[in-house]
Amino acid sequence: MRATLMYAAGDVRVEDVARPQIRNPTDAVVRIVLSCVCGSDLWPYKSLPPTDNPRHMGHEFIGVVEQVGSGVHGLKPGDLAVAPFLYADNTCAYCREGLQSSCLHGGQWGVNGVDGGQGQAARIPYADGTLVRLPVGEDSELLPDLLTLSDVLCTGHHAARTAGVARGDTVAVIGDGAVGLASVIAAKMRGAEQIILMGRHKVRTDLGRDFGATEVVAERGQEGVARVRDLTGGEGARKVLECVGLKDAIVQAFGAVRDGGTISRVGAPQSTDVPFGFGDFKRNITLTGGVAPARASIEELMPHILDGSIRPGRVFDRTIGLEDIAEGYRAMNDREALKVLIRP
Amino acid sequence: MRATLMYAAGDVRVEDVARPQIRNPTDAVVRIVLSCVCGSDLWPYKSLPPTDNPRHMGHEFIGVVEQVGSGVHGLKPGDLAVAPFLYADNTCAYCREGLQSSCLHGGQWGVNGVDGGQGQAARIPYADGTLVRLPVGEDSELLPDLLTLSDVLCTGHHAARTAGVARGDTVAVIGDGAVGLASVIAAKMRGAEQIILMGRHKVRTDLGRDFGATEVVAERGQEGVARVRDLTGGEGARKVLECVGLKDAIVQAFGAVRDGGTISRVGAPQSTDVPFGFGDFKRNITLTGGVAPARASIEELMPHILDGSIRPGRVFDRTIGLEDIAEGYRAMNDREALKVLIRP
Repeated sequence: MRATLMYAAGDVRVEDVARPQIRNPTDAVVRIVLSCVCGSDLWPYKSLPPTDNPRHMGHEFIGVVEQVGSGVHGLKPGDLAVAPFLYADNTCAYCREGLQSSCLHGGQWGVNGVDGGQGQAARIPYADGTLVRLPVGEDSELLPDLLTLSDVLCTGHHAARTAGVARGDTVAVIGDGAVGLASVIAAKMRGAEQIILMGRHKVRTDLGRDFGATEVVAERGQEGVARVRDLTGGEGARKVLECVGLKDAIVQAFGAVRDGGTISRVGAPQSTDVPFGFGDFKRNITLTGGVAPARASIEELMPHILDGSIRPGRVFDRTIGLEDIAEGYRAMNDREALKVLIRP
Repeated sequence: MRATLMYAAGDVRVEDVARPQIRNPTDAVVRIVLSCVCGSDLWPYKSLPPTDNPRHMGHEFIGVVEQVGSGVHGLKPGDLAVAPFLYADNTCAYCREGLQSSCLHGGQWGVNGVDGGQGQAARIPYADGTLVRLPVGEDSELLPDLLTLSDVLCTGHHAARTAGVARGDTVAVIGDGAVGLASVIAAKMRGAEQIILMGRHKVRTDLGRDFGATEVVAERGQEGVARVRDLTGGEGARKVLECVGLKDAIVQAFGAVRDGGTISRVGAPQSTDVPFGFGDFKRNITLTGGVAPARASIEELMPHILDGSIRPGRVFDRTIGLEDIAEGYRAMNDREALKVLIRP
């Protein structure tokens, strides 16, 4: 089968790899019908040192079950299902608490003999725990929306939930990428009254307004912070959702948050330290968030997609075939595309 | 009157200063009947550069009201009252939310023309908001316990509350100073089932056991972390209360906390960065806490002292007269004394 391999920064190829097979009784094999490129795929795209042992890419996909192992009972061939961006047994102590990102048997796609999601098929470890069946056909127009359950919608939901966004709240969202826009959706779903989106790509921030942002702040750094304070009676936002991961963004988050407020960061941190000294300690700032346990919220969020009340799939603004994957990465990296859909 | 001034690291003196007077209608003047030395007083004691403009010391005290300004209505001369370690109007938006540490008109004792607490008297800004009346006489045996409402008991309570310590919880407390021991009391009050106290001064950890610690870990660093993990089924503690403020302690806190758990730090941070990179982000660790709004919890905690169910005043293991203050600082700094009571 064909799959996406990354050999170095900027060097993404589609190549022939072995077709996946059942290895363990709890495995399934799916034929992938829709996948996409993630903002986090761009970190190695910018920085991966050249390697002869290329990385298997992709961790967001919808597939049709082709085969199941003898220990899989909740799925059968022909089922359409979405995979969260980490696989998990969904039965261990962490999973039962909704922290599937710390599953004792879980892991990442594309490493340790597990397929990536940007290919034609994938072996699914702990298929009963990992996959969630979709009650639509593979020709459904909702497929792009449902694909966001793999990652960005659940990640935005995780940001808003861990920040404790509640009815009437004031929220600032840092970053107008797909996760930032999904965080706007999630903040609105939780009843936030004021949602300030910090981003400077007008097409994206316009989509953010459609999703529920009440204001857009295009300025960055201290200027951006000053604008957020202006918009919040001088105090700052009670909840800040940091959806970028760069140090500048976390500094901006501390600047924009109200005393006693909470920053939830869901952008993968690109530095090992957080600037969080006595000044923000005195202000009683809480820093929460982390890698979203997407599996935990798929069932909760799916109905809102099925009934049309949210349309998170609007973050996809380009569709490519698998063979054009290199162009998809390039377009996202150059910010020509917000998020690229792949039809294998 | 006599008051405590710090001229340099290791140089604490008692000198004559002007007797406080009412300056604003909302002021009161109290005669101090009991005060103490705080662990945080030891930071300047270790590091203050020599100055001709000495720092007025002390921020925990109980006093008898001698005079009130025309705008003070809740207190009258003769009332015995405890002062939290920050003064506050107790009416602004932050105060009404219980965040008196961010009071718009509040501030610290000992700076900007406000007296310190280690003296014979003090002017109290926003006396109605700041002071809390005590329903005992100044000869009460409970006075040392009630003095902990100024800071350490409320700070321990803040640690446990912001960490979300709940019935049945597993808690690790880092630090066997007065705040660490008060955090043990607070964790127990909230129903924690397992309270692991990390400290290596046996007299102090023995007191911690009396206060409710179920285990003591004397080891530090990676060894201490391994012991906490042993005691928690390999997972770590769900809540970690960091009561030191040094970088090693926060590193230890991240090591000791369970995936999905919360660290609350109430030890004043002595560094500007927190080592909190992708690894702990992936584990969904929350970092909360901060400077305690002591004023917010005095009324809630006082009844537990008055009915004898907690005895936080046991952290005081030495009593000195004001003129002996230098010796009190030395004894605490050399760890001969846990916490020193001052009878002016």
